Amino acid sequence: MNDFALDLDPAAIQSILDGAWADARHLGRQLALDETTHLDPADDLETTRANTLAAVGLMAATELPLAALPKSLGGTNEHARTVAGFEETVTASPSLQIKAGVQFGLFGGAILHLGNPDQHAQWLVPAQRGELLGSFAMTEIGHGSDVAAIGTTATFDAQTDEFVIDTPFTAATKEYIGNAARDARAAVVFAQLITAGVNHGVHAFFVPVRDADGQPLSGITIDDDGFKGGLKGVDNGRFAFDQVRIPRTNLLDRYGAVDAEGAYSSPIDSPGRRFFTMLGTLVQGRVSLDGAAVVASKLALDIAIRYGLERKQFTTVDDYRETTLLDYQQHQRRLMPALAATYASALAHEKLLTSFEEVFSGADDSEENRALLETRAAAFKSDSTWMALDVIQECREACGGAGFMAENRLVGLRADMDVYVTFEGDNTVLLQLVAKRILGDYAKEFAHIDVGGAARFIGTQAAEHTLYRTGLANAGLAISDVFTPNLSERRIRSGRLQRTLLESRLEVMVSGLAAALRPAAKLSPEKAAELFNSHQHELVEMARAYVELEKWKAIDEAMKSQTDPAQEKVFRRLRDTYGLSLVEKHMGWHLMYGRLPMSRARQVGDTLNRLCAKLAANALDLVDAFGYGDDHRRATIATGIEAERQAEAAAYYRRARAQRDYPVPEKQLKRTGSRTA
Amino acid sequence: MNDFALDLDPAAIQSILDGAWADARHLGRQLALDETTHLDPADDLETTRANTLAAVGLMAATELPLAALPKSLGGTNEHARTVAGFEETVTASPSLQIKAGVQFGLFGGAILHLGNPDQHAQWLVPAQRGELLGSFAMTEIGHGSDVAAIGTTATFDAQTDEFVIDTPFTAATKEYIGNAARDARAAVVFAQLITAGVNHGVHAFFVPVRDADGQPLSGITIDDDGFKGGLKGVDNGRFAFDQVRIPRTNLLDRYGAVDAEGAYSSPIDSPGRRFFTMLGTLVQGRVSLDGAAVVASKLALDIAIRYGLERKQFTTVDDYRETTLLDYQQHQRRLMPALAATYASALAHEKLLTSFEEVFSGADDSEENRALLETRAAAFKSDSTWMALDVIQECREACGGAGFMAENRLVGLRADMDVYVTFEGDNTVLLQLVAKRILGDYAKEFAHIDVGGAARFIGTQAAEHTLYRTGLANAGLAISDVFTPNLSERRIRSGRLQRTLLESRLEVMVSGLAAALRPAAKLSPEKAAELFNSHQHELVEMARAYVELEKWKAIDEAMKSQTDPAQEKVFRRLRDTYGLSLVEKHMGWHLMYGRLPMSRARQVGDTLNRLCAKLAANALDLVDAFGYGDDHRRATIATGIEAERQAEAAAYYRRARAQRDYPVPEKQLKRTGSRTA
Repeated sequence: MNDFALDLDPAAIQSILDGAWADARHLGRQLALDETTHLDPADDLETTRANTLAAVGLMAATELPLAALPKSLGGTNEHARTVAGFEETVTASPSLQIKAGVQFGLFGGAILHLGNPDQHAQWLVPAQRGELLGSFAMTEIGHGSDVAAIGTTATFDAQTDEFVIDTPFTAATKEYIGNAARDARAAVVFAQLITAGVNHGVHAFFVPVRDADGQPLSGITIDDDGFKGGLKGVDNGRFAFDQVRIPRTNLLDRYGAVDAEGAYSSPIDSPGRRFFTMLGTLVQGRVSLDGAAVVASKLALDIAIRYGLERKQFTTVDDYRETTLLDYQQHQRRLMPALAATYASALAHEKLLTSFEEVFSGADDSEENRALLETRAAAFKSDSTWMALDVIQECREACGGAGFMAENRLVGLRADMDVYVTFEGDNTVLLQLVAKRILGDYAKEFAHIDVGGAARFIGTQAAEHTLYRTGLANAGLAISDVFTPNLSERRIRSGRLQRTLLESRLEVMVSGLAAALRPAAKLSPEKAAELFNSHQHELVEMARAYVELEKWKAIDEAMKSQTDPAQEKVFRRLRDTYGLSLVEKHMGWHLMYGRLPMSRARQVGDTLNRLCAKLAANALDLVDAFGYGDDHRRATIATGIEAERQAEAAAYYRRARAQRDYPVPEKQLKRTGSRTA
Repeated sequence: MNDFALDLDPAAIQSILDGAWADARHLGRQLALDETTHLDPADDLETTRANTLAAVGLMAATELPLAALPKSLGGTNEHARTVAGFEETVTASPSLQIKAGVQFGLFGGAILHLGNPDQHAQWLVPAQRGELLGSFAMTEIGHGSDVAAIGTTATFDAQTDEFVIDTPFTAATKEYIGNAARDARAAVVFAQLITAGVNHGVHAFFVPVRDADGQPLSGITIDDDGFKGGLKGVDNGRFAFDQVRIPRTNLLDRYGAVDAEGAYSSPIDSPGRRFFTMLGTLVQGRVSLDGAAVVASKLALDIAIRYGLERKQFTTVDDYRETTLLDYQQHQRRLMPALAATYASALAHEKLLTSFEEVFSGADDSEENRALLETRAAAFKSDSTWMALDVIQECREACGGAGFMAENRLVGLRADMDVYVTFEGDNTVLLQLVAKRILGDYAKEFAHIDVGGAARFIGTQAAEHTLYRTGLANAGLAISDVFTPNLSERRIRSGRLQRTLLESRLEVMVSGLAAALRPAAKLSPEKAAELFNSHQHELVEMARAYVELEKWKAIDEAMKSQTDPAQEKVFRRLRDTYGLSLVEKHMGWHLMYGRLPMSRARQVGDTLNRLCAKLAANALDLVDAFGYGDDHRRATIATGIEAERQAEAAAYYRRARAQRDYPVPEKQLKRTGSRTA
């Protein structure tokens, strides 16, 4: 396998991966070394929560959460910087990333993006300094991803100049709210704003929830969600409001204000567009989950690959020498595509961060760019969080029983990441939103598809945004420009072939779905909904085809920008492994639609086998490039202990065999016996 | 969707699923109702372990563990009965199943199968009554699935008539041993038996490890593995032995004895065959994990489907009525194939249990039957435990945030089942063992493939067993009998087409691998090992193709044996969903090898969509048939609470809308406004 090894400089690759916000990443990684940020599974729930809160305090002390603030408030108007720094704290614990994300990204972020300057002055700086602890109370028991349907009401009472926040029935209880069970003193509460007999839809309100001693305020019931599948350090809970009064000025009123007489006004006339604009300001959550999923995948691979390079099992060549795990083809096939997907996702995430920075810094906050950011954030978050679960699980299994021990971190990491696939928008819902936008780009009638009631079906949130182009068009693929792969292309590893296969699959899916769904506009709402439902699975698959192409393009671009030949070569291997894994996964489709001749298709498996063997030869460089040390991994099996034990065993056997009375194996005795017989 | 609903009797389906050992299953389910068997995530490690031990005591009190004993010891020589009963305790907690499995199945089982009548009299009955707590100390830090390579030694000292048990180096420490950290007073320890200067290979020894007060005996170091990814109730730990002396009579000597002079004798001459015979007696572990995986999958589906039938999200048809989750196509596509796979696996497991009973009761314990049992156990265990992880995860995600709450059990169930895929033989290793046996059936040269060192590569354990036929030949498929699917077959749902596709895929894979690997016999050990390694991925895939076919045949047979037309129809839907899911998964292969015309292939997706919609119409019946009640599910979301909350919300909105001052939505106001304009 050494024949394949390239001469790589992990530090150079690291600087590519660390990207434009490398300094923030280093800061996050530095924070992750502080023992306060490390959780002990033996601690009880309250201790774990207290420790996580202390780690959030350390995060505040880095002043990273202030970066996103305007200069007038002591910030630097840097948005991606904060996100990149937060992501790296996943190596300390996902509980920290999420609890900090709730405090600074959601609670602070909502005040920043939805509040006015007075509100910023009053609450925002204390929030970002970790002095005012808060929750982000959007989700309700009865409504998860369908935020528009929440039941909590905020009714304006002109007599007292107050809003009355109320939970009218159990299903409207705010649920799964981070910081709620223990720490929050206030919450940004999403509720239907009602004034003068009109419901103006969902708005955000600043609601104090506990007094200085931590006791719930009058009219507020707080429940504890207790144990979850992971994220033990995050105190999720429930809020119910019984006619809780707050001053009118607690309405975060950037997109909708009420005056003392109860008159409502908004800079955005359409209630639908207003709602989606408000939600759109909160895209940071999805951006940071995409990045967190990449970090978690890196960490898991870092642990499993180091172990796989030391651990030996089964003799293959003779009776004594055992084979190293990562020399086994199947072990390579388990871990190398995971490594390639992680690289592709990291590079795609960097592009997402760039787009996020452009929009939120104001460098390019056109509606088109904003819409593209939202589509990509939804798409990448879905794909990356599912990828992380798969990658971590493959890593855990690749480490056998040792992978199941808490001290080797893989099981805890997976347990924590599990909820990422359903929170901040359920992946399945998000992918339908992405599908809707792609269809809207493809044909105008889908931009207004909610006419038939059908838009509701694939995520009402999309309804007002489909005027803008998804990445599809922006990234240079004209949907109409169908082209068949050049069958004379000699190498299955050809980048052009991979790109063509991924693009044409998406194109055919989009045009096929458009044709199938076009009749919806003329159908009754019921029939239109039925038609959409009968294609829901394809819609989700189409959205995944879109993300896969985007990620492939990200690693293809990275490859092309390399100047060092060895580095270019390893990125090519990574790209091809990612690309051909996708082709293999969708092989049925490519063949069914005649995009790949059968003779070529049969090469894919062998080519992947060879690519995995090649990548394995540089596996250590490729995980070194993640920039983590033993103190980030904190996994016993990744410390070299396995090699030490093997050396001890080997030394024992060497000594023992040198002794005259070393027991002869019965098998050998029999062999000798039969030979002399 | 009601158009599709069949008139089913869940009780009748239950009796099919409960099978021949229904009474034992009922006993296990009854036990699972006892609160002692339920673990609380809030308990600390030691409390959880103590409670699990108490539950093991209840299990002993049922006397199920005695059933496997010979009549002379008060047993009934019933083997599958015990296993079936144990499996059902997964609904209480997988910790109970595993801790009981260690105590009665592994510790007791080893004494039963490897010990002599004196040893049975002394240790077996106390073990099965839960009075003598024990461990099964096989795995070592340095060697997981490769048991033949363990380093622990048991050297006979004729002077004192004792064996000296020793851990010569750290890697030989017994690791992940259940019951070790807290409860075991004795252990069956596997070690290299050395006498008179000869190493006779791995044998089992009864070794006391703690005194009556629970203190480790002299020379024995016991460590605690602490927290794991799951199975919190099982006290896994490590044993290291420093020249620990036990009487000669503590060797479990059914397959290898040492007399007072130190002379070794065995009823099995070949050391290899002896080793595999000993291990073969312990197949019960894999059989019961297969069944446990089925029970865990049933439980998860029971919870998620009940919730999916109540939970509503997003309005589709109008502004008010929300759609039930299980009416969404994608939700059906997530859960119905999982349900079908669980049914197929349950029915296949029943066949495995029957074969297990035949072999162990002595009704048919021919070597051929025993080998077939071992192959199937390895194959089914691998496939079912991976299936369980996928099914539980799909169920957890299908329940959104609620699925992540510990109180809804899905996350805990998955965490506990995680290790099933790597213990009692790592799935990847087991599947290579299965592949080796299939190849051995196919061509004689592979029966002795270890000549070239290549057998080591795909699991040395197989080396001595390949004289026997795997299920392949037994089940009626002559490998040479290749036939192309009848392309004129009109319906893609045709059972004959499905069977042909699954069979011919396996056949082509087997013959292709045989042709590719045949040169190994003539190569140097190094080159032969390299050749095998370059096909390892295909070997694993081929073994999976074998299991899939076996499971498909099990549900096909069940369908054919139904007399009630509705029941026959629902089993047909389950079979087709399972079969076509497999065809879809391997579509690339079927097309690449010209087994399925493209026009037919394109029907598979739509056909699956329709099948899933049909199955969804009877989803409640199909989970009712699992035979679990609220007290087995113990999941808040599966109690009807969601429907209650929705009814409360609906009643609130009805009342509110009836009031004159109910706020008008701004959107509606605008619509009215524009209409009047």
